[in-house]
Amino acid sequence: MTQAPPPDDQQWMRHALALAAQGKGRVEPNPMVGCVIVRDHVALAEGFHQKFGGPHAEREALSALPAGCDPAGATWYVTLEPCCHTGKTPPCSDAVIAARPRRVVVAAVDPFPEVAGRGIAQIRAAGIEVEVGVCEAEANRLNAPFIKRIRQRQPWVIAKWAMTLDGKIATHCGNSQWISGEASRRRVHQVRGQVDAIVTGIGSVLADDPTLTARPPGPRTAARIVMDDRAQVPLDSTLIKTQSLAGLHVMVGAAAPQDRIDALRNTGCGVIVNASGTRTGGVEQLMAWCHDQGMTNILLEAGAGVLASFFEVDAIDEYQIFIAPKLVGGSTAPGPLGGVGLSQIAQSPSLEPLQVETIEGDLLVTTRRVR
Amino acid sequence: MTQAPPPDDQQWMRHALALAAQGKGRVEPNPMVGCVIVRDHVALAEGFHQKFGGPHAEREALSALPAGCDPAGATWYVTLEPCCHTGKTPPCSDAVIAARPRRVVVAAVDPFPEVAGRGIAQIRAAGIEVEVGVCEAEANRLNAPFIKRIRQRQPWVIAKWAMTLDGKIATHCGNSQWISGEASRRRVHQVRGQVDAIVTGIGSVLADDPTLTARPPGPRTAARIVMDDRAQVPLDSTLIKTQSLAGLHVMVGAAAPQDRIDALRNTGCGVIVNASGTRTGGVEQLMAWCHDQGMTNILLEAGAGVLASFFEVDAIDEYQIFIAPKLVGGSTAPGPLGGVGLSQIAQSPSLEPLQVETIEGDLLVTTRRVR
Repeated sequence: MTQAPPPDDQQWMRHALALAAQGKGRVEPNPMVGCVIVRDHVALAEGFHQKFGGPHAEREALSALPAGCDPAGATWYVTLEPCCHTGKTPPCSDAVIAARPRRVVVAAVDPFPEVAGRGIAQIRAAGIEVEVGVCEAEANRLNAPFIKRIRQRQPWVIAKWAMTLDGKIATHCGNSQWISGEASRRRVHQVRGQVDAIVTGIGSVLADDPTLTARPPGPRTAARIVMDDRAQVPLDSTLIKTQSLAGLHVMVGAAAPQDRIDALRNTGCGVIVNASGTRTGGVEQLMAWCHDQGMTNILLEAGAGVLASFFEVDAIDEYQIFIAPKLVGGSTAPGPLGGVGLSQIAQSPSLEPLQVETIEGDLLVTTRRVR
Repeated sequence: MTQAPPPDDQQWMRHALALAAQGKGRVEPNPMVGCVIVRDHVALAEGFHQKFGGPHAEREALSALPAGCDPAGATWYVTLEPCCHTGKTPPCSDAVIAARPRRVVVAAVDPFPEVAGRGIAQIRAAGIEVEVGVCEAEANRLNAPFIKRIRQRQPWVIAKWAMTLDGKIATHCGNSQWISGEASRRRVHQVRGQVDAIVTGIGSVLADDPTLTARPPGPRTAARIVMDDRAQVPLDSTLIKTQSLAGLHVMVGAAAPQDRIDALRNTGCGVIVNASGTRTGGVEQLMAWCHDQGMTNILLEAGAGVLASFFEVDAIDEYQIFIAPKLVGGSTAPGPLGGVGLSQIAQSPSLEPLQVETIEGDLLVTTRRVR
C-alpha cells in the first residue's frame, strides 16, 4: 500500500473556503473566513468565523487543536489575510505568530484599510514564510459583498425574480401567484434570511400586500424597504403591521404629501426622502443610506419599475432568476426589467457564465455582473 | 473472472432507439426505427431505417448479419412494430418470420392504420413469441411527430426563439442581432436542416430580410413559409431571390391586394390565401396545408405575433429556447409570445420537465407540451 499523494495547497485552501462559506449571513459586515492548520499532510485543526463579534477563523482553529497539541511547524491555510488590529477581538497576526507556523498560505489580502497587507507583513517580519494568492479568485468571489462594502461604500445588490419560460413576471392582468414552485419560494426565504435588507416597490405592496420576512427565520433579519414616491404604503398593510418582526423603511419622493409621511412615521417606520427627485437618484441615495446602516447585502424583490431603476444605474451585482415551466404570453404582460431599456443588444452589461440548478420543476439561473 | 450480467431487454431496446434516432431528418414522413438482433447476449447484427424509400430497420439488420450467420433462435429488438403491408418495400413481418426468431420484442405499436397491430399478429400467428411495450414511452416520444401526423393529420410544431435573460427577443428599438451566440445559431441551422418547413412572419422579413435556409445544408430542405396578411413580402427580398435553394410559400389574408398576390406568384412562389379571415384560423389552415404537403415537422422562427397565433390555438408541441447571458430591459421591448396572453398563471399549458444544455455561453432550454 502506498500513501495517497498529499493534498496540495489549492485543495487545503478550497477546504478552508468551504468552511468560510458556512459563515454566510452570520458574520456580516465582517468577511467570511476559514482556516485549516496542517502538518505532515494532516489537518491538526480547522475553524471559521462563525458569527459577527465572535472569534476569528484563526482563533477558532487554534481552539479546535486537540488537547496538548503544539502546532509549531505547521502550515496554515487562511482564506483572508489575518487581521493586525484590535477590533472586537485582538489581532490574529499575533496569535498566528505565537503558534510558530513554518508557513502561512493566504488566499487574499484584506481590503480593510487597517489591515491591507500589514497582517501579512507582521507575520513575515516574525520570520515566517507567507504565500499569498492561492485560490485568490475564489476567495474574492466569496467575499465580493464585503469587498464592495469596503472599497465602494455600497451594499452588494442581488436582484431576484421569478419568470415564466417566455420571460413574464405576471400576466397582462397582473396575476403572478405563483410563477415559481414551492421549493423555489423556500429557497428565496433562505436568501431573505441572509441579507440585510429587502427592497420592493409600492406597486408590489399594493398588488400583493407582502410580508417580506424570512419564513422560517434565517441568521439575519432583513429590514424591508419600499420605494414609494407618493408615500402610498397603506397604514393597514402587512408591512406596517409586522414592524415588530422586522424594520420597515419607506423611501418617498420630495413631493410626497406631508400628512402621508407623518402618518407613516407615526406607525414607527422609517421614512427616507429622495432628495434627488429622480428614480435613479433615489437608488444612489438608498445605496449610500444602506452602507451607512452597515448593510452588506440587499435583495431586490420588486416589479419591473424598481428593478429597472437599479439596472439603469448598473447597480445590480448578482442575479438569481427562477424560470418556471410555464408560458403565458401577452405583449403587455410585464417582463422583469421595465423602463426604456437598452437600444442595442450589444450594450448589454457583461455577465459571468450562467450557473443553472434545477429546483423541482423550476430552473434557478444565477450570474453576476462582470466588473 | 465472472461474466458481466447480460444486458436486459430495456438496454437492448435503448440501443435500438439510439440507432433509430440517427434517421432523424432523413426518413420522414416515415417513422424512425431501429433494430438489433441478439443471440446468447451478443448482438449478431443491427440496423436502422436510414432514408425515406430505403430499406426498413429489420432488413438493414438482416443485411448486416455476418456472411453465413443464420439468425435462427435469436431475439429481435425493434423500436416499432414491423410493417405488414407492401409500401415502398415489401412487408417486414415476412422477413422477420423467415429469419425464425425465438422472440421479438417491440417497443411500440405502429399507429399507421394499415399496420396498427397486424404486423405483431402475423408474427405471433407464425408461432413466435412477441413482447410489446418495452421502452414504449421513449419510442413514442422519439416518433411523436410521426404519430401526430398519422393520428391528427397535422405537423409537429417546434417553436424556437432566442431571448435575453430578461425575456426579450429584441430591444425596444427592434435590435435583435445577435442575442444568442454563434454556437447556438449553428444549432438552429442543424434543426432547419431536419424539418419540412420554417414559418416566419412578415415583420421578421421586413426587419431582418432573412434567408431561412440551413447552412450548411442538412438532410432535408425546408420550405420557407411567411405569414403575410397584406402580401407585403418585398419582391427584392432574399426569400424571393433564393427560391432556387428552397421553396417559398406566402400565406396572405383574403383582403390582400390582388396585384401584390399576382406579383408574388409571378416570382414563382406559392400563395396560400387565409380563408378564415383570422390569425388563428390561418394557423389551422396552414397546419392542414402542411399535412397535405406530407410535412412532418415545422419550425417556427418568428416574432411575437406569429408565435402568439400558434400559442393561442395550442398548436405548439415543442419549444427550443435559447437564453443568452444578456440583459436589455425595456417595458416595450418584445418578449417571445405577443398577443393578449393568458389572464392567470394557472392557465399556462402544462409542459414537460425542462431540459437544459449549455451551448457556449447560452442556455438551450427544451420542453414539450404535455398532451
